[in-house]
Amino acid sequence: MKADKAKGVLIVLSGPSGVGKGTVCKALLARNPQVKLSVSATTRAPRPGEMEGVSYFFKTRDEFERMIAAGDFLEYMDVFGMNYYGTPRAYVEQQLAAGNDILLEIDVKGAMNVKRLCPDAVLVFVVPPSMDTLKKRLVGRGTETEEAVERRTREAFAEMKLLPEYDYAIVNDVLETAVDEVETIIKAERLRICRRPDLTNFCKEAGTEL
Amino acid sequence: MKADKAKGVLIVLSGPSGVGKGTVCKALLARNPQVKLSVSATTRAPRPGEMEGVSYFFKTRDEFERMIAAGDFLEYMDVFGMNYYGTPRAYVEQQLAAGNDILLEIDVKGAMNVKRLCPDAVLVFVVPPSMDTLKKRLVGRGTETEEAVERRTREAFAEMKLLPEYDYAIVNDVLETAVDEVETIIKAERLRICRRPDLTNFCKEAGTEL
Repeated sequence: MKADKAKGVLIVLSGPSGVGKGTVCKALLARNPQVKLSVSATTRAPRPGEMEGVSYFFKTRDEFERMIAAGDFLEYMDVFGMNYYGTPRAYVEQQLAAGNDILLEIDVKGAMNVKRLCPDAVLVFVVPPSMDTLKKRLVGRGTETEEAVERRTREAFAEMKLLPEYDYAIVNDVLETAVDEVETIIKAERLRICRRPDLTNFCKEAGTEL
Repeated sequence: MKADKAKGVLIVLSGPSGVGKGTVCKALLARNPQVKLSVSATTRAPRPGEMEGVSYFFKTRDEFERMIAAGDFLEYMDVFGMNYYGTPRAYVEQQLAAGNDILLEIDVKGAMNVKRLCPDAVLVFVVPPSMDTLKKRLVGRGTETEEAVERRTREAFAEMKLLPEYDYAIVNDVLETAVDEVETIIKAERLRICRRPDLTNFCKEAGTEL
């Protein structure tokens, strides 16, 4: 029965800025060694201590654009027209085949791309307890002008429109609960038929295929 | 956010006879008071102590057949042409709307019917550790002739062919693990977008619908 290793889960955590998806990710990774954050490719220069293939895959702008053209990214973004950041498809596929669960913390647009390219990806939307709370969190950062807060709130509303495209929603009210919920989702998704090559022999015996 | 109650999960546990799905169900119900076994309709006579609407909904053959004709069952079977047993659609829908998780322990054919009528139903296939184990369990019952064991084994193989139609598979090797896995599946399914009317107001605010 255990002839083939179960595939890992590609889990995409996204949601409006200010919702605290970064905090949820960090807590999840700290608690769950089987879940690994994806290593992104970037065109920005390495900072002291950063390691190729661990912190990032460092690329020149030329290399990155050739990879875009070749369809080598699950999603990418051009941050302020300054630096590209992207999720290399090959890296993610290798990790999943090795049975590792891979976590992507990306924006809503990126999530929609991943969904298109990897139909087995599990999309989790992190929702604030209320839109008022989200606004307060954005104000509370103290780093944003009133205008920026307004803009981000409008963006958050626009992003919420994509909620029906997601598989799951978790409310980030109490952090521990939110992390528990993502863990539960990952555990359940590991039991999905589409991720059970351990049942392949069984099916062969019965004369069917997964 | 909690204006609307989340819908319950309709969870269908099925698999070949001898796999121990009844044992998994019993252990799950004992541990998890939010999960309720569906109340079936039947044409067999009530036994002492059985209560209408609790043990079964007792029907005459005529009543039952009128219900079949009206499409009132999610699935039903005619056991040895003697007695009908079926899952009343209205009962299940009321329970789900009230936020209760409903468990159905049914055969593979019934499960396919439920899937057709309730696309949100969660189908879990209970798999034996191996086909050899299943055969040994059938023999071990001691109640079956060699011929009957052969027939049941052939049936089990035929049923396994429908595995790819299911959402999840659990291996019934260690009972506790199997029950844990069903619980995890139910918890995760409660977080699915399609079961989150608690997010309806949110979506309204954002100008979208779930």
